Amino acid sequence: MQQWRLAARPIGRMLQDSDFTWEPDAPMPVPGEGEVLVKVLYLSFDPALKGWMEGIANYVAPMQVGDVMRGGGVGEVVESNHPGFAPGDIVQGTLGWREYVAVAPGDGVINIQKVAEPVKSLTAPLGVLGTTGLTAYTGMLAIGRPNPGDTVVVSGAAGATGSIAGQIGKIMGCRVVGIAGGAAKCAWLVEELGFDAAIDYKAENLDARLGDLCPEGIDVFYDNVGGEILNTTLKHLAMNARVVICGIISRHETGHMPKGPENYAQLIFKRATMQGFIVLDYAATFPQARRRLWQWVEEGRLKDKEDIQEGLHSAPQTFMRLFKGQNFGKQLLKLA
Amino acid sequence: MQQWRLAARPIGRMLQDSDFTWEPDAPMPVPGEGEVLVKVLYLSFDPALKGWMEGIANYVAPMQVGDVMRGGGVGEVVESNHPGFAPGDIVQGTLGWREYVAVAPGDGVINIQKVAEPVKSLTAPLGVLGTTGLTAYTGMLAIGRPNPGDTVVVSGAAGATGSIAGQIGKIMGCRVVGIAGGAAKCAWLVEELGFDAAIDYKAENLDARLGDLCPEGIDVFYDNVGGEILNTTLKHLAMNARVVICGIISRHETGHMPKGPENYAQLIFKRATMQGFIVLDYAATFPQARRRLWQWVEEGRLKDKEDIQEGLHSAPQTFMRLFKGQNFGKQLLKLA
Repeated sequence: MQQWRLAARPIGRMLQDSDFTWEPDAPMPVPGEGEVLVKVLYLSFDPALKGWMEGIANYVAPMQVGDVMRGGGVGEVVESNHPGFAPGDIVQGTLGWREYVAVAPGDGVINIQKVAEPVKSLTAPLGVLGTTGLTAYTGMLAIGRPNPGDTVVVSGAAGATGSIAGQIGKIMGCRVVGIAGGAAKCAWLVEELGFDAAIDYKAENLDARLGDLCPEGIDVFYDNVGGEILNTTLKHLAMNARVVICGIISRHETGHMPKGPENYAQLIFKRATMQGFIVLDYAATFPQARRRLWQWVEEGRLKDKEDIQEGLHSAPQTFMRLFKGQNFGKQLLKLA
Repeated sequence: MQQWRLAARPIGRMLQDSDFTWEPDAPMPVPGEGEVLVKVLYLSFDPALKGWMEGIANYVAPMQVGDVMRGGGVGEVVESNHPGFAPGDIVQGTLGWREYVAVAPGDGVINIQKVAEPVKSLTAPLGVLGTTGLTAYTGMLAIGRPNPGDTVVVSGAAGATGSIAGQIGKIMGCRVVGIAGGAAKCAWLVEELGFDAAIDYKAENLDARLGDLCPEGIDVFYDNVGGEILNTTLKHLAMNARVVICGIISRHETGHMPKGPENYAQLIFKRATMQGFIVLDYAATFPQARRRLWQWVEEGRLKDKEDIQEGLHSAPQTFMRLFKGQNFGKQLLKLA
């Protein structure tokens, strides 16, 4: 059996190949009493994993060097010593970067559970119905609190969370402007997802374009990026604006924290709020959120783009795509 | 009649003497139809005035070069052509840095009004019952929302607003730690105002002291200072913390904006909120707030320290005390 382990903590720098150890012939796990054996089908990649590798994201148990690489996934039960699970069941959990895992349902970290019936798709539990979709839903609605007619700006808008957050803004009746890197992503936001406009921050002057596109100011800024994008956008807040701090992906591009937003004085002048959140706190709302997200997908109002790479051996490269701006929608890996 | 005018905008630098023009023999104003003539008794100094001089604080009409220096004050009506005012009435408003002003009650900028009866003190309307006290009350209660038992940290704690904000924290049943510059201010906070502790940021290691004094984290941080004090304090937030952005006095010490708080990622991990406000938005609550503030003063639970300089000619030097950390409590000027 093949798997990946954490070899080194990527603290203060970008990820590199030597942070990961490939084990091509690990022993096949054998499920013990009360355990099930799961064959991993798909893995999901989120920026938060880099924080866990570094040991700095303290809202879940940190990873240790030598651990099997952590990562959410969907798998199929192939053997069961647990009365609640049978071969063929589709489960999700923090399965890890490996072909097979033996686990007792309810285990704190891996925490496998059956994918809720009906299984809409093998990958939706990792994307629009998983942490990605739930984060966008929670961040936009509970923290951003948009009203119909509001101007909403989303950074990292072509990413998994950003693209769903922006579409929720549209569903709420807002004018939505996306910030993304590259003409192809920007065209996709406007033409496929129905954003009102998109700004290619690599090619355009963000400050000037925000001024043009948001003449009455930004009511909700959903920020996945931080750094200069956050700092510049603060200059364009409307009165009583809400700034949702969802993530700081720019810190991973450079390997260190971006400079702080020196324009935070705008929070005073515009009576604005900047707020962070951790989606896990909102678990009680997830069933309702999943029902609504899936309804929007079925109605064609919410498009869930997936970027599916293949083969467990390419897991590190697939993960690194997130920090190079290469992924286009939700980053997934299909095991061979 | 003597007065001061704005000579130059102090943009991107500290205040200097040449920003002000002294007019020792301006013509004595004559009240017209519907106007009253007011003799200025006390002037009040707030950091916001520097923003108005610069023209960047856009929530009130900016000052123009050549204008009489703006400033809140208390005065006595000496002549009245208005049926609602009589000689001897005590009024407050944005009277300006001058000995006398002729004004129609209701004028938008100067906006004189009678000091509410009974006139508790000639200076209270400029301090604990004025913008200073109302800002502390609003920022702490409406934005900071402390609960009994919370740990509250206040920066600029020996300043006019900070000292009242911290005392309101104590009245709310919180543990209150002040950050101030100098041993005398710190001793005053603890011994006179009843703060639980004070940190002399000029002499002590703020990061280490906050760790010692707030082992369970900070629930409310009331920040008047910004810059490195804000950045360091963010590292010590408790879950669901509220960071009240009241002001950024440190920008005036250096003449430019301090660097942004690069530790703002803590807003995510701690599910925290950073919020600005402008007290003018809360005008509907001022009568209630003034009643409560004055009740606390009368009960001896709220001490209102005043730093009273003398003579209109020293107005610029008195104003500069705010930015040099020289004032100890509310900065006022008594006219000769």
